Amino acid sequence: MKIFETTMAPNTRRVRIFLAEKGIEMEYVQLDLQKGDNLSAEFRAMNPMAKVPVLELDDGSYLSESVAICRYFEELHPENPLFGSTPLEKAQIEMWNRRAELNFLMPTGMAFQHTTGFFADRMTPNKEWGEDCKKSTEGFIRFLDKHLADSEYVAGKNYSIADISVLCTLDFAKVIGIRPTPEQENVIRWYKAVSSRPSAKA
Amino acid sequence: MKIFETTMAPNTRRVRIFLAEKGIEMEYVQLDLQKGDNLSAEFRAMNPMAKVPVLELDDGSYLSESVAICRYFEELHPENPLFGSTPLEKAQIEMWNRRAELNFLMPTGMAFQHTTGFFADRMTPNKEWGEDCKKSTEGFIRFLDKHLADSEYVAGKNYSIADISVLCTLDFAKVIGIRPTPEQENVIRWYKAVSSRPSAKA
Repeated sequence: MKIFETTMAPNTRRVRIFLAEKGIEMEYVQLDLQKGDNLSAEFRAMNPMAKVPVLELDDGSYLSESVAICRYFEELHPENPLFGSTPLEKAQIEMWNRRAELNFLMPTGMAFQHTTGFFADRMTPNKEWGEDCKKSTEGFIRFLDKHLADSEYVAGKNYSIADISVLCTLDFAKVIGIRPTPEQENVIRWYKAVSSRPSAKA
Repeated sequence: MKIFETTMAPNTRRVRIFLAEKGIEMEYVQLDLQKGDNLSAEFRAMNPMAKVPVLELDDGSYLSESVAICRYFEELHPENPLFGSTPLEKAQIEMWNRRAELNFLMPTGMAFQHTTGFFADRMTPNKEWGEDCKKSTEGFIRFLDKHLADSEYVAGKNYSIADISVLCTLDFAKVIGIRPTPEQENVIRWYKAVSSRPSAKA
């Protein structure tokens, strides 16, 4: 098995951290997205959405979408669960991971695309929309700071994929100039804890 | 248990169809989103994201995010699985459900919000962005038509939550004036099949 990816993207890092937490070794193949490696007919045959990461399975078939790849490995290696154990915990982690994706990762990604012009060769940036998304990103960090006052990790008492999603987004938010403020002490406490795990280097 | 929702939204219908497929009875409480029922302090205490649906559990706690609610019931009632059975099938269904959400449900919802002015009292519509999203919605239907030429259901040979996500989005796309064209025969064949299931009335 191997994964086609690019180191700088938050979604690819989600998979790398997930696999590091699980102790799963993986071969990674780097693509240059700015050069358009992901837009080739060959890559679209692997993932018609033209996005990374893509996992190549041993039978030559492909799996894409970062959380789908993580879920595949969670099912194969259920020990040290990152999607939860009980029905309720699994649902709560799914809820928090989706809150993080919809209200933090998505607007941060769109703010990057629409305000920096990084992919201006293949899309029409809408600066006004990008600025609106930046406000959503800042708003989520404020919400997260209140939430983490009563919660050790994003989805409760256990580290989970929701922490991975938030960590990767918070680090990526540097590209749009957004950082937690010094007053956001709960976010900073949580960020230090999750960033000091060996998996965060992935 | 009961679910707070509104009948018109695609996300709430996803949960209703899911529970109908599982044969699970549920009490539904209707909110009027245009009147702002979801913006009250009382509702935000149930879901700080101020979104429906919200499931109230028997202990008085709450669960939100439609797919998290579906997953909770999948875990409690694993018979007739809608998230897949094997590790690979679970991952493929997650992949297709996310493709449908990111490339179809999200742009359709944003096109609705940004072109109709339905929520103009609580957000700033960006018409240009809304029109861009409409193109994404149309593009996904074209992609889906090609995909369904070789696939009985969205995620393969079994009906799954990915079909529910696509069905709810395709029906909701009426509000932005987008329908499959008569030439999109694979989408039409699939749409007839999934719409004729009793659950589609939910």
